[in-house]
Parts: sequence; C-alpha cells; structure tokens
Amino acid sequence: MKENIVAGVDLGGTKIYTAVADLKGRILAEIKAPTEAGKGIDFVLGKIAATVKQASKEAGLAEIPAHLGIGAPGPLDPQRGFIYQAPNLGWRDVPLKSLLEEALKVNVTVGNDANLAALGEFCFGDFGGGSNLIYVTVSTGMGCGLILNGELYQGADYSAGEIGHLTVEPDGILCSCGNRGCLETIASGTAIARFAKELAQQGKGTDILKAAGGAKEGITAEVVSRAAAAGDREALEILNKTGRALGLGLSYIVNLLNPSLVILGGGAMKAGPPLWQAMNFELSRRAIKSNMDKLRVLPASLGDRSGLLGAVASAIQASRL
Amino acid sequence: MKENIVAGVDLGGTKIYTAVADLKGRILAEIKAPTEAGKGIDFVLGKIAATVKQASKEAGLAEIPAHLGIGAPGPLDPQRGFIYQAPNLGWRDVPLKSLLEEALKVNVTVGNDANLAALGEFCFGDFGGGSNLIYVTVSTGMGCGLILNGELYQGADYSAGEIGHLTVEPDGILCSCGNRGCLETIASGTAIARFAKELAQQGKGTDILKAAGGAKEGITAEVVSRAAAAGDREALEILNKTGRALGLGLSYIVNLLNPSLVILGGGAMKAGPPLWQAMNFELSRRAIKSNMDKLRVLPASLGDRSGLLGAVASAIQASRL
Repeated sequence: MKENIVAGVDLGGTKIYTAVADLKGRILAEIKAPTEAGKGIDFVLGKIAATVKQASKEAGLAEIPAHLGIGAPGPLDPQRGFIYQAPNLGWRDVPLKSLLEEALKVNVTVGNDANLAALGEFCFGDFGGGSNLIYVTVSTGMGCGLILNGELYQGADYSAGEIGHLTVEPDGILCSCGNRGCLETIASGTAIARFAKELAQQGKGTDILKAAGGAKEGITAEVVSRAAAAGDREALEILNKTGRALGLGLSYIVNLLNPSLVILGGGAMKAGPPLWQAMNFELSRRAIKSNMDKLRVLPASLGDRSGLLGAVASAIQASRL
Repeated sequence: MKENIVAGVDLGGTKIYTAVADLKGRILAEIKAPTEAGKGIDFVLGKIAATVKQASKEAGLAEIPAHLGIGAPGPLDPQRGFIYQAPNLGWRDVPLKSLLEEALKVNVTVGNDANLAALGEFCFGDFGGGSNLIYVTVSTGMGCGLILNGELYQGADYSAGEIGHLTVEPDGILCSCGNRGCLETIASGTAIARFAKELAQQGKGTDILKAAGGAKEGITAEVVSRAAAAGDREALEILNKTGRALGLGLSYIVNLLNPSLVILGGGAMKAGPPLWQAMNFELSRRAIKSNMDKLRVLPASLGDRSGLLGAVASAIQASRL
C-alpha cells in the first residue's frame, strides 16, 4: 500500500465520489459512480472498494493507498466510524469503518459529510486564511460543519451544526424532528419544491408548472430556480422566502460564533441572485454590525468537490498520526 | 512581587470585586468596593489598584502578585487589553491593560466579563468534566461565554457569544442594536421590569405595584420575581414569557454547538422555578433530541464569583506563558 498517497470518498444517497490524492491534496484520479443504495449495504461497500481500486489504477499506482477517508450522511460516531442512521441510504446502525477496513485492509476514517465539506473548504479552499469557517449546505435538507480556532468542532456528542433544526417560525409547519418551523422546512430544496407544488395545487404558479413540463410531480427546486431566472414573480417569491429564512438562520451563527467566513454549498444555493440577495438582506438586518464587519459569505470554492476533498484531508490527517 | 500568587478583578458597573489566589485558584483574600464610575477613569483605576494592594495585604503578602487578570464589560480587544465601549462605566476607548500595568507594574490580562465567567466555571466549577461549556448571564442585559474543545472561543473579532441579539421575535420591538425582537428585549432584567411597568401604565399589575411599594419607578426584575413567588398571576406570566424566550435562544446554542453544559448566571436567573421551568419547556421543545440527551442546564456553581474566578484563571494562564 502506498504510504504517501491517500484516498477520499464522498458517499451520498445518489452517487459515490472517489479520489486518490497526494499528501498536499492534489487529486491524481477521481471517479463517480451511482450509489444504488437500494441494492443493499454489501453492494454499496463493494462499489466503494471498486472505485478506490479503479482510481488507484488510473493514478498509475500498483496498490491502493494505506489511508482512506470517507464522508457519509449522519448522524454517526466518527470515533467508531459507526453510522446510526442514514435515511437517504436506508442504513441504520452500520459499522462502516470496520466493514471497509475488513474489505480493503486499509486504515479508514469516517466523518459526517457536512463536517468533511467544511474541512475540505478550510484545507483546500481559496479564501486566503482565517481560522474560523462555517460551511452550510442547502440541498434536499441542510447540513453544517464548523471549523473553530482552526479545528473541526463536533460538539459533546458529534452532533454540532444542526442548522436545519433552528426554529425560524415558532408557529410554523411541523418538521420531521417534531418541532415546528425548523429552518429546513423553509430553506431546503425539498421546501422550495413543496412551496411550488402548493401553488400548483391552488391553480397558481402556472409558469413554474410550465417549466416542469406541465406535471406537478415534475416540480423541483431546480425547476423553480429556472422559472425565477426567467423572471416569474411567483418563483421569485418562493426564493425570497427561502433566502430570508436562510439569512435569519445564518444570523444565529454569525452572532454566536463571529466567524470570518461562511461558505454556502449544496444544490439549492445554485438558484442564484434572487436567493443570495434575500439571504444577504435578512442576514445584514439580523446579525449585529460588529460581527458583520469582517464577515465574508461566499459560495463553496471547491464546487461539488468540498466533501470529497474533506475526505482526502481527513485521510491525510490520519496518515500523520 | 509574588510569582506563585495571582490577583483577579471583576470590574462591574456597580462594584469592583478583587481577589488574591494561589495557582490552584484557592482564594486567599477578597474585597468588594463600589465602582463609583461617575468619578472618572483615574478614580476607578486607583480604586482597582487599592483593592489589589489591600487584598494582598489581607492575604499576608509583603508585595502584590506579578499577574493580574481583570474581567471588564465589552466590547473589548483582549489582545491589546483595550476597551472599545463600556456603557455601564461610561468608558470609550480605554487602554485598560497599559494603564493598569503602568499603575501597578505587574502583568495585566484583560478579558470580557462573560468570557471570564465561562472560564471561571470551567476551571473551578463543580460539574465533573466535559470539554464544552456555555455560560449565559441574564442580568441588566445578556452575556455569553463559550468554552469549546476545552478552550475559550472568542471568534474572529473577539465578538462571539452575542446571545442577547439573537432574533426571537422577527417583528418584535426595536433593540438598541437596530434590529427587532432581539432576545435581550425579552430575556433580561430590564425587559422584565419594562413588561411590569407597561402593565402598571395600563392600570394592571396591582400586586406587582404593591410589591414595589406603590411607585411605578420602584418596579424592578427583583420586585416582579418576588410577586411571582407570592403567586401573582401577572408576574408569573411575565416570567413565563421571559423564560420561554430564553429557552428558544438557548435552543440555537444547543442545536449549533451540542454542548454538554449550559450554565446560567446573572441576577435575573434568581427569579427561580417559574423562569427556569418556562426556559426548560421551550428549550426541550425547540432543540433536537440528540443534542438534549446529554445536556445539563444548571445555575452557576460559583454564584457571583464566576467572573472573579475566571479573572483569577486568566492570570494563572498568563503566569504560565
């Protein structure tokens, strides 16, 4: 096994994204493969192993790297590499670390996907310094990773960064967590699509429905974003509502943690200016001035590679122990 | 100057609280003196110096300690020991560290009062371990100090922990910071008194007014707490409102930071069960279950000595550099 090379895996509900990189985080080869989680845990584990082997081969290596970092959906225990629950994989109580170590005979480090995305942006992002960085992803749901004083902060129980469950509408709709008005019920791809579907149900949102090919089932956050980009007022209103809730949620982070950088990633953030402007408007209104003065809020500099490079970074850190 | 002894000062708007302690934080002598901030900066500096000398003498020392830690109201720059603004002292742009070093010829460490209270509870509090502790004070206003991964976390600009300006009522009343519905406008001694005065203005709150000696001007948070303890429904409603807002504010901390301990101090928290029960009710409703499971929310174990012992702890840390 190569000691000066590491592997990183970003394990998602729809795709496995694997890379082989050197100790400076330079990617030597990368591979994307569909997860096909429906085929079971063993199938997914086999696929992860296959992508690591293939990426190693494409990088011209005779063997696979000795250290593998993998980012997975949580909640999980990074110390034991144990996944408690990953709804989008259909997993519950999976000892990912030991299963992969057995299969590949390498050292495996498991991390929460949002935490590793934060680590990736912190280690390899193009932001020019600072020791505090908050990474927030707005996708199907929300995720958040905290780099504080130059280190990943995970909390007493590895459950820090639960941004999706910050209450932003005390009397809002019921969230899957049992609380009302959680940020995720307004600021997520799922919520954006839900708002548009509710309009369609009321016979409104005709331009959005048109953009979805005429079928209510075809409405996604991406469809709403496209309609907004074309100037549709109702789509713009949805993104305004989502952006303002997101800005309010971020104001809690900015007031409490006074970070120098907030990085926003995830599919829903691709909605562009209407969403970002509403977010910035509400954030500036709600966060105290002293904490806004030196703050920068920026899109992920590594695009959809934040998590992958975070997995690489975690493997590099493990290789140094 | 004694090298194995330190001094700590808790500088407040109404009193100066000074102690001399050994390197294990055991207090050898302590003194309280009124601040009398109205008499000017030089007067207050002279008084701080006098209390340090007197406490040293009472501890049986022939000279004053070589290291002095002092907690002061913020916003301030702890690196330079420079106070930007301390409204309750009437100070603006005061280089406290250099002024005190000149006056006393000892090494001075300046910290934000809420941060030092967090440090005091973390170093000397009776909680049995854990590496994350959030200290929240509910007094005239609010303050918050964060101990994360075993260290004081201050943010990019020494402005972390701005709990008083978390938005809890988006359309609420205007705060001095310019935002609406800040937590401090509901959860503070000032707010509790204001709610009761508003009732009196409307000809209501007769029991509270009675407890205040019949004069609206006499209504304080302490008066409201007393009326509530005697069973007055209107006073209980005020504390319920305050407690629930506080619980909502704490839920943001618990969801984002997953601490094992939240410590509540400050005069307003002395209102007792009606306030604490409402706080716990709302916190449990709003914070996610995984982060509540191992959380303990407790009153300050050091009483009104949290800040003083934090100042001592900061002097001990400085003496080790």
